[in-house]
Amino acid sequence: MTDRTAEPQSTEGAYVESGAEFTRDTHYIPTRITADGRDGYPVEPGRYRLVAARACPWANRAIIVRRLLGLEDVLSMGLCGPTHDKRSWTFDLDPGGLDPVLKIPRLQDAYFARFPDYSRGITVPAIVDVPTGQVVTNDYPRITLDLSSEWTRYHRDGAPDLYPEPLRDEIDEVADLVFRDVNNGVYRCGFAGSQEAYESAYDRLFARLDWLEERLADRRYLVGDIITEADVRLFTTLARFDAVYHGHFKCNRNKLDEMPTLWSYARDLFQTPGFGDTIDFTQIKQHYYIVHTDINPTQIVPKGPDLSGWLTPHGREGLGGRPFGDGTPPPPPRPGEEVPAGHGA
Amino acid sequence: MTDRTAEPQSTEGAYVESGAEFTRDTHYIPTRITADGRDGYPVEPGRYRLVAARACPWANRAIIVRRLLGLEDVLSMGLCGPTHDKRSWTFDLDPGGLDPVLKIPRLQDAYFARFPDYSRGITVPAIVDVPTGQVVTNDYPRITLDLSSEWTRYHRDGAPDLYPEPLRDEIDEVADLVFRDVNNGVYRCGFAGSQEAYESAYDRLFARLDWLEERLADRRYLVGDIITEADVRLFTTLARFDAVYHGHFKCNRNKLDEMPTLWSYARDLFQTPGFGDTIDFTQIKQHYYIVHTDINPTQIVPKGPDLSGWLTPHGREGLGGRPFGDGTPPPPPRPGEEVPAGHGA
Repeated sequence: MTDRTAEPQSTEGAYVESGAEFTRDTHYIPTRITADGRDGYPVEPGRYRLVAARACPWANRAIIVRRLLGLEDVLSMGLCGPTHDKRSWTFDLDPGGLDPVLKIPRLQDAYFARFPDYSRGITVPAIVDVPTGQVVTNDYPRITLDLSSEWTRYHRDGAPDLYPEPLRDEIDEVADLVFRDVNNGVYRCGFAGSQEAYESAYDRLFARLDWLEERLADRRYLVGDIITEADVRLFTTLARFDAVYHGHFKCNRNKLDEMPTLWSYARDLFQTPGFGDTIDFTQIKQHYYIVHTDINPTQIVPKGPDLSGWLTPHGREGLGGRPFGDGTPPPPPRPGEEVPAGHGA
Repeated sequence: MTDRTAEPQSTEGAYVESGAEFTRDTHYIPTRITADGRDGYPVEPGRYRLVAARACPWANRAIIVRRLLGLEDVLSMGLCGPTHDKRSWTFDLDPGGLDPVLKIPRLQDAYFARFPDYSRGITVPAIVDVPTGQVVTNDYPRITLDLSSEWTRYHRDGAPDLYPEPLRDEIDEVADLVFRDVNNGVYRCGFAGSQEAYESAYDRLFARLDWLEERLADRRYLVGDIITEADVRLFTTLARFDAVYHGHFKCNRNKLDEMPTLWSYARDLFQTPGFGDTIDFTQIKQHYYIVHTDINPTQIVPKGPDLSGWLTPHGREGLGGRPFGDGTPPPPPRPGEEVPAGHGA
């Protein structure tokens, strides 16, 4: 997901509005791809393309869930590069700068194919209908839930249930708190337009991290004893914390690796197939430090932090838990979908 | 000390020159205040005023040395506020915005009183001749050495020798390495105008910190077994490391508190009278984050980091050493010269 600047009419780098607190535009395209096709887009193998970017925490959720559920064969994936111009995420990593399936240079082309006057942000993740080249949805919280609950027919053998019926209320509740104070909270720190707005966001962020530190002290995962959607959502923010949010967004009461429980929880997930193998720290740092020119005008990308800690033993096995429930871990990433060598931990 | 922007003709916020590495202007006013008065400025109690700013690491050296040597009665001190305008450091903390002794609003007035066409940076520390209102010197490395070796007649009883003859060569050698790679090295990271210049400065900085980590593992202080000028010079950079340089200057391989030896060495000094009681973290953070608008255009000042660690036991006593040699610690700061409550650790 990008934020304000992804809007075609916005000024490049205008992430911070002076004097204002950061308010995320949470209006997304509500069309859903469902098993029954009630919105005109039925689940269908080979028909859709997930467009994501490894840099983006919101897109990272969809990358992880697609991989955990084994949907690679039925839902292809296009990856935008870490930076984007003021109009759109671009396929600048692909030969000729064109997505090899959609044959477009910019994700906005798929948005405009469906809505010629589309005026909101051109965000990832988005799912595009390949035959028409039209975007179907960019509603990222819905996308991962629908991958879990509408695409079940095509899940791999041993796919985990990331959104089990009996746990949904609790998952929703935890995910909502985590969204407000953590996932979006770091942005509210970094894009604050006043000292007061920043400090308020900072206080909420660290109060929630303290709450999570306590919640996770004696339970391996956020909800139940298995990995759920709630863990996926927290993980993509934690993975970026020390690399980006601590310095770039001034979320600097402490680094993640100074919170023993959260840091071991994050390492546990990182070392679980389907999580850490989707994380490209190089692209993550490039994205934030190069794109947000109004908070980092030099566009210089920090060389730190030392990332080797991500691979150290986490010791969380002792808490029990069944990572994939009755299922199994996913196999290694598909050829062509691996994080480039040197970009991981 | 400020850097480029302190020059009256410069553009506000122009600390970073695109494409270039940061090169410090190291030409200072070379006049010296000496015991024999050979430059026309003899050491004389009550005649001079040290102008400093708690925010500035170069001025912080002089604040510490003046206090360790007990020169408060003979050399008064004026303190500029943490931020300055594009022309000069200002006395904005004083009633009416005027230094109570010099009766000027801006430090540049003392520079211009002596050199009407002065075109270099208006830097702290500076020593002003009170009767004429003219700046005598801003040569910060010389200022502290001269306080140690030319003002001896007025040192307090029990003042330490911070620059003992037999250790001078080694002090100079260590201080030179520390200046190039650490004191100025953090600025070379933060004001780098290219990714290449930044990465080169970063590598030199952390290589030198690793070298210091090793050097200080089995010796309490940098040179000999006593506190010397070399320790003062390293300390003022270490005190700012996690609060400012780690995030603002992108010196982020790790925080200081992740280097066990350097962190305990820094805490040892911080807890030694004359060091930590000169550190105003609030002003330090305000200075860097508000003044350098070309690397922090929002001017938002981070609320972190948690500073409570500075007061934890350091365990360095076991290494021996005689902090003040044959001397004694200084008494508490003078009334009116204390760091404001809530601004320290």
